[in-house]
Amino acid sequence: MNFGQLIVITGPSGVGKGTLVRLLLERHPEWYLSVSATTRAPREGEVDGKDYYFFSKEQFEIMIQAEKFLEWAEYAGNYYGTPRTPVEEQLHQGNYVLLEIELLGARQIQQTFPHAVKIFILPPSMSELEDRLRKRAKDSEAVIERRLERAKEEIAASGEFDWQIVNDNLETALDEIESILVTTRNQKSENL
Amino acid sequence: MNFGQLIVITGPSGVGKGTLVRLLLERHPEWYLSVSATTRAPREGEVDGKDYYFFSKEQFEIMIQAEKFLEWAEYAGNYYGTPRTPVEEQLHQGNYVLLEIELLGARQIQQTFPHAVKIFILPPSMSELEDRLRKRAKDSEAVIERRLERAKEEIAASGEFDWQIVNDNLETALDEIESILVTTRNQKSENL
Repeated sequence: MNFGQLIVITGPSGVGKGTLVRLLLERHPEWYLSVSATTRAPREGEVDGKDYYFFSKEQFEIMIQAEKFLEWAEYAGNYYGTPRTPVEEQLHQGNYVLLEIELLGARQIQQTFPHAVKIFILPPSMSELEDRLRKRAKDSEAVIERRLERAKEEIAASGEFDWQIVNDNLETALDEIESILVTTRNQKSENL
Repeated sequence: MNFGQLIVITGPSGVGKGTLVRLLLERHPEWYLSVSATTRAPREGEVDGKDYYFFSKEQFEIMIQAEKFLEWAEYAGNYYGTPRTPVEEQLHQGNYVLLEIELLGARQIQQTFPHAVKIFILPPSMSELEDRLRKRAKDSEAVIERRLERAKEEIAASGEFDWQIVNDNLETALDEIESILVTTRNQKSENL
């Protein structure tokens, strides 16, 4: 039987997870990116089923009870989660499935999918991360400080992951992620 | 001309740097471990020239002025540094030289030896690091808390290094460090 590979990509806010995942999918259009579910309101231009699956709080809580999420968490008063069915379907079809998720979600995946390849993206330095957060967002000084403090907490957990990739040069980081996945595939073949 | 390889090993207090370095030297007795200089008093059983080179504060400051250190820093009122001459001699003889140093020293080495292989040792998790600090030391609760806080700050800088190795299983971590050094040697040969 064919069985795919679950790949968890996590790292602090501002480290460039989203860009890395987008470029990985450009290189590998055959890979599947999990679409998260959320109870927060759609922002302008966001498409239901593409950017997120949008649910009401009541719907989301029923789905939690019914174990419809591989992982879920609450941030700033809203729920976020990874719907179970599409991920499992893609894996059963033998596909690679990417999850771009936060630390707490990644820890839950570790429980349910111990064979997932878990990759932590590190910033080249804290000052570089600070620059990126400042350039990207129109956040207030207090919000940036809080994000940096949370980033430190998250990076402190990077050793919980199978691989740590520094996102200094995008192309190099992509090559490293690809070579991890190729190694994983070869190791799996050897074990058959 | 033969030219060796400088290897910098750093990571938070309690992560197991010392054990890793000791076991690396058991596997490779031909490698050279740099002995640090310090102005702190020798502890019982410590041998001058083996555990540390012990200097007075005045001697140490004269050596700083004379640029006798590859890196140096002050911790808790004492100086610590890496004497330049023995390291340079070993490198010129074509040997591998290991430096087990703190973050600030490692950053100074990055300036003077940009081609050093810089390895950051990560704990498998913060709770594991906490366990190790508690088991190892008879430190007070306040000291352990401070060490953990400093560990978080240091781990936040792990992306500044070429490689991040999780010290979960000692043998695995040693194998990973060895394979990094073999890869480095091969890359150097290819560039000749």
